Amino acid sequence: MTYERLAKQIQFIAEVDKLKQVLRRTSPIGAERRENSAEHSWQVVLTALLLEEHANEPLNMLRVVQMLAIHDTVEIDVGDTFHYDKHKHTDLSERETAAAVRIFSLLPIDQRQLYLSLWREFEARETAEARYAAAVDRAIAFVMNLNNKGGTWVSHNLTAEQILSRNSHVAEGSKALWQWVCQTVEQGCELGYIAKP
Amino acid sequence: MTYERLAKQIQFIAEVDKLKQVLRRTSPIGAERRENSAEHSWQVVLTALLLEEHANEPLNMLRVVQMLAIHDTVEIDVGDTFHYDKHKHTDLSERETAAAVRIFSLLPIDQRQLYLSLWREFEARETAEARYAAAVDRAIAFVMNLNNKGGTWVSHNLTAEQILSRNSHVAEGSKALWQWVCQTVEQGCELGYIAKP
Repeated sequence: MTYERLAKQIQFIAEVDKLKQVLRRTSPIGAERRENSAEHSWQVVLTALLLEEHANEPLNMLRVVQMLAIHDTVEIDVGDTFHYDKHKHTDLSERETAAAVRIFSLLPIDQRQLYLSLWREFEARETAEARYAAAVDRAIAFVMNLNNKGGTWVSHNLTAEQILSRNSHVAEGSKALWQWVCQTVEQGCELGYIAKP
Repeated sequence: MTYERLAKQIQFIAEVDKLKQVLRRTSPIGAERRENSAEHSWQVVLTALLLEEHANEPLNMLRVVQMLAIHDTVEIDVGDTFHYDKHKHTDLSERETAAAVRIFSLLPIDQRQLYLSLWREFEARETAEARYAAAVDRAIAFVMNLNNKGGTWVSHNLTAEQILSRNSHVAEGSKALWQWVCQTVEQGCELGYIAKP
């Protein structure tokens, strides 16, 4: 029984290894290549651990980490969707749900249910853990762009208004992080990385 | 004060972004390129979360995750060392310690101490958390090689004896995982990926 469960779990690990091949719009700091969703997932996990004190509410950090470790695995089937394009994809949510069901079904049934529910929780942002995890996931884009000469702000010619309105939910997870995001946008404007509306 | 701490923490995040540029010997499954230590770190965090039930001892999983999220950050300064070469580098431990001190010093003092001590704990393998984290870190190489036509077993012409003796500490963290590793080595031999001694 132990061995059968372990074999399933390892099959899942081998499947989600594919996340290393899903490319995002951002690049690692100072690199030419685009980063992949696996290395991004590591970065948000570490950032969430480090910034816990800035969360608006007390958190179960293990749940936050579980959520962030799997938050992008659906991209194995649907690819990465640029944050500013998400509203354009009307069927994205259905395709992502189908992907989550397929991928987590590789796990033993108890873990399948747990991780499917964690993924839904992350998407819904209705718990303290999900709000904080989503705030960290968004804030990291600001760290990257500020250190990458504007990164996707420049390549997609985004305005301060677009950036602030599409990321305002950062404040629901962490007011301190939202304050930092706003200051970073100001800095991005001063540096000429962000177009003024 | 909050803002000053946050600025330091974000500076640390930007610094350890460099882990995305440290290459390991292994490749993502089915890929030509070598994988980097950031995506590997994500994979070991997720694997540790999923395989907790197979640990020999009860664990504080949050400590395990904290350890694994930063276990390779010293490679930013010293590079990745192939597991089978580690014994050849007599000054590796000193160089790694210097790297850990430099990198974690970017954090506010309480977190500097916490993460430096977690890194030392991981290296020493004297706690249940460190033994389990190290077991997962080693076991993942077996998942990769088995799914990559032998991977580094083939490219470095390793024998079953070398592989088993260099990884026997997996058993200290998880007897179930060690059993799986041993069966995987047998399978690797049958498939012609591993040389018999």
